[in-house]
Amino acid sequence: MTGEGERLAELAKRRGFFLQSAGAYGGVSGFYTYGPEGGALKDNLEAAWRDRYVTREGHMEISSPDVMPEAVFEASGHLDTFDDMLVECGECGQSHRADHLVEDNTDIEEAESLSNERIAEIITEEDITCPSCGTALAGQAVEDFNLMFETNIGPGSSSPGYLRPETAQGIFVEFPQWAEYARNQLPFGVAQIGKAYRNEISPRKSIIRVREFTQAELEHFIDPEDDQPPLERVEDVVIPLYSIGSQQDDEGVIEEMTVREAVDESVVESPWIAYYLGLSKGWYERVGVDMERFRYRQHLPDERSHYASDCWDAEAELGGDWIEITGFAYRSDYDLRKHDEHSDEDYTVFKQYDEPVTVERATVDPEMSYLGPEFGGDAEGVAEALDALAGRDPDAFDGDEVIVDVDGSKYTIPVEQTGFEMEEVTESGEHIMPHVVEPSFGVGRLVYTVLAHAYWTETVDGEERTVLSLEPKIAPTTVGVFPLMDKDGLAERARSVAADLRAAGLAVEYDDSGAIGRRYRRQDEVGTPFCVTVDYDTMEDDTVTIRDRDSRSQARVAIDDLAATVADLRDGVQSFEDL
Amino acid sequence: MTGEGERLAELAKRRGFFLQSAGAYGGVSGFYTYGPEGGALKDNLEAAWRDRYVTREGHMEISSPDVMPEAVFEASGHLDTFDDMLVECGECGQSHRADHLVEDNTDIEEAESLSNERIAEIITEEDITCPSCGTALAGQAVEDFNLMFETNIGPGSSSPGYLRPETAQGIFVEFPQWAEYARNQLPFGVAQIGKAYRNEISPRKSIIRVREFTQAELEHFIDPEDDQPPLERVEDVVIPLYSIGSQQDDEGVIEEMTVREAVDESVVESPWIAYYLGLSKGWYERVGVDMERFRYRQHLPDERSHYASDCWDAEAELGGDWIEITGFAYRSDYDLRKHDEHSDEDYTVFKQYDEPVTVERATVDPEMSYLGPEFGGDAEGVAEALDALAGRDPDAFDGDEVIVDVDGSKYTIPVEQTGFEMEEVTESGEHIMPHVVEPSFGVGRLVYTVLAHAYWTETVDGEERTVLSLEPKIAPTTVGVFPLMDKDGLAERARSVAADLRAAGLAVEYDDSGAIGRRYRRQDEVGTPFCVTVDYDTMEDDTVTIRDRDSRSQARVAIDDLAATVADLRDGVQSFEDL
Repeated sequence: MTGEGERLAELAKRRGFFLQSAGAYGGVSGFYTYGPEGGALKDNLEAAWRDRYVTREGHMEISSPDVMPEAVFEASGHLDTFDDMLVECGECGQSHRADHLVEDNTDIEEAESLSNERIAEIITEEDITCPSCGTALAGQAVEDFNLMFETNIGPGSSSPGYLRPETAQGIFVEFPQWAEYARNQLPFGVAQIGKAYRNEISPRKSIIRVREFTQAELEHFIDPEDDQPPLERVEDVVIPLYSIGSQQDDEGVIEEMTVREAVDESVVESPWIAYYLGLSKGWYERVGVDMERFRYRQHLPDERSHYASDCWDAEAELGGDWIEITGFAYRSDYDLRKHDEHSDEDYTVFKQYDEPVTVERATVDPEMSYLGPEFGGDAEGVAEALDALAGRDPDAFDGDEVIVDVDGSKYTIPVEQTGFEMEEVTESGEHIMPHVVEPSFGVGRLVYTVLAHAYWTETVDGEERTVLSLEPKIAPTTVGVFPLMDKDGLAERARSVAADLRAAGLAVEYDDSGAIGRRYRRQDEVGTPFCVTVDYDTMEDDTVTIRDRDSRSQARVAIDDLAATVADLRDGVQSFEDL
Repeated sequence: MTGEGERLAELAKRRGFFLQSAGAYGGVSGFYTYGPEGGALKDNLEAAWRDRYVTREGHMEISSPDVMPEAVFEASGHLDTFDDMLVECGECGQSHRADHLVEDNTDIEEAESLSNERIAEIITEEDITCPSCGTALAGQAVEDFNLMFETNIGPGSSSPGYLRPETAQGIFVEFPQWAEYARNQLPFGVAQIGKAYRNEISPRKSIIRVREFTQAELEHFIDPEDDQPPLERVEDVVIPLYSIGSQQDDEGVIEEMTVREAVDESVVESPWIAYYLGLSKGWYERVGVDMERFRYRQHLPDERSHYASDCWDAEAELGGDWIEITGFAYRSDYDLRKHDEHSDEDYTVFKQYDEPVTVERATVDPEMSYLGPEFGGDAEGVAEALDALAGRDPDAFDGDEVIVDVDGSKYTIPVEQTGFEMEEVTESGEHIMPHVVEPSFGVGRLVYTVLAHAYWTETVDGEERTVLSLEPKIAPTTVGVFPLMDKDGLAERARSVAADLRAAGLAVEYDDSGAIGRRYRRQDEVGTPFCVTVDYDTMEDDTVTIRDRDSRSQARVAIDDLAATVADLRDGVQSFEDL
């Protein structure tokens, strides 16, 4: 963590944004608690996400359990492949991410793409030592460590369960039900906001890499042949792209281009991914991500997840590092196909043709009175093989005889005994396996990003002022209300102003302690965009002073208009300069 | 489950309220997924809770991790005592709740209060058999089974973690931090809405008894000596009380009395608990709990949790059973004291006196030049014992000699060598351990209750109509919008009406499929309070038909007024009859 990170962590703990959990017991790496300010900020970001990705897009939102049975992760592949490389120190017993040690001690950048054996060799060759105790790690085995938290459902260990490593599987596994609610009409989207868990070997970087975190995921199920995204809605949005080509280039330039250009020039392969990159850019901006510290980076071929064919990350610059805040993945039909194969449920959707289609289909109806005597116990198998062959290769029945293979033995049958025929069949549609487009947001990282990008300081009258320029709609508190003095009825009046603002649905903080300047500083530091002061003039003319956080300018507003004015300022309907 | 339960479960799955999770893999007992309708209903209930118990009461809301380290539950007592009684069948290996088997097979009602040994005896005496395979369970041991899901944090098993069995511990463990945010001023409240987990031996009853559920908990920290609840706000509220006395009486009468009477007559011991019973009754009513099927039941002495001194449950009648939907517990200082003792943190609050207090305090200042030669290596211990004795019992220094005990040995010291003195000390306050008042809501049970209490059917024109009379503010959808026909521009117009209502912040469902009567039925069944139909008159005069779910009456409203009218109907500002 850089200076920025340390300053932010200190502010976060002191003012109630977030803190490491269970500090009274020494804390546990990778677990954080959101305090009152952080909880409200997180709630507001989630509400903004829901508004954008669920309500306005017309998608469904569901909520599935955090604990899921093993069968789900057998199917999804997480049980086999959701691993990190672990090396344990022979001396002190401390475990480390082996690939991170290699990256920290060599010029190698994507060590995760190397084999365990190769990583172990490099550790030996480079004399890499244990960061905890300094002992050489040479010769220690590098092993796969599954990142899912495991537990047992019910008594005993016969029914293992896992804390989901992504909320998405809770959506995929119930797909047949969601398809029914959508009346089997593609495309449709199913979203979920909830916890996910990854048992990181060595968590670090505050709330950036944690073991328990909140995801906001949207799984958009589409017909890969016929469905197109409404690209026209976002085609003119300019997006900053850091493609594979740019990353492999020494210059490493981030290219700015419109969504339409990105699709036309195939910089972004999937128009669906391009649609979400365009849609999301405006959203990031509105919630307070600094566009000067933002880019979309394409995954390099060897860093893609096991399921994804095209991946882009939204990245934010934080303390000098580029950190993933959202993954946009074209997951194809990987997940639904896996669940279709592993379970007894059907994960396809019946796609009705516009008009019924007549197709020619080869059928057989073998003479069992011939096959029976001829092949005895194998007759059944021969009949099945003939049926399969007709479906696969009708031309094989062109001659007088046809040869089929049953468990390695070949059988020759006269075509006239097979009952082979070409039939005309009318089909009204077909079963297709939908593809999935997934924007997956890390809510904690977003909280961190908007805090880091909102943070600045200045010196006013020789004193440092710390400000969080949070977007008014996202800030934990919209308006602070102060009485100038705690006497002459000012406090009662201020309390009644605060109550009225609360009744109008605004997030209000009342503060009557300390000098007025200190109260402003306190609100600046937690990002409250507006403060209202009740003073002696208020008692005369029913107006109050309203003060703008960023500019520190002040204006006078009638109490009767106050709630509407603050709501308009928050919603961007009115600007402070026009007051 | 009764007929009510089955009908509700069928409706819940078919229409997207909730369904058993991972059905494709046979399902897992005790885990449920909320579909789009249920998710929205749950969100609305949580928002209503937040509004009532956090915002309006001026409390903080935080969010802590679901996985917590062992030290927390060692302190809280959950590791030792959060058990159920388990008996395993020697034949089929199936595990069962031993106390439930006894209750199901005998007249015993609160079997949980008996010892494991006694339960095992009863199983043998009564020839109770395994419900799964019918084998006699006689002679099988009855064991404690801890209900917390266990996992490991990081590689290896050196750092066990548990899924929290209540959200409350995430609040208690960080108490010193919350106290700082509250500037050490009692009383203050800290709330949390989040998941909790209990590894039930045999979960049953749909979403009523599950292994993973959502809690909404408020921990109100108070000074037990000086803080009083604002009882005047709720003193006239009439609450239905089923006290210990009533429960032990054969009649079993539920007494209706005001909050004030309940406190004055000591039916409810703690005024704080009485305050929350009064506050909550109105809230339950507003979210749609049927007050004819509702009561507050006092915990019997032997069913109280290990931490609670007075407990009342809010109970709802569901399918003939009374089910707990909220627990109101006076937890005293149990939790904070435990964490204070087990950790290095201080869980007290410094309570400033109104005015500094001068107290007499006994001090000693022993002559070490006497003690040293006299007692050698024990001199230090003797000095400490004298200091402790002076604090505990100054009168012991009244005579010429004083006797102290150090590790079982007695030492006699002349008082003149002890430097004993009575000093006047001025104290500005004292450290006190706050007490905790806790309303703890089960959100899933509340979802189930409002669904069950809202459900009714009637026969209209020979056809059954199923209705969920959900409160308009709680219903997943506020207004359905239909075009009478999907032609002549009606659909376009209806879509634009729907878009305008959405833009006004209303939850809208657009439906253009099937006969209009069927569309009404569909919305009735998911509890949508109002439906709007765009018809041919709309195209002439810009009005629409609005229809009321419960009465099926209809009115004509101008499109320009529609959003405001629907919002007013939802908020109860206007009634449908007055349209």
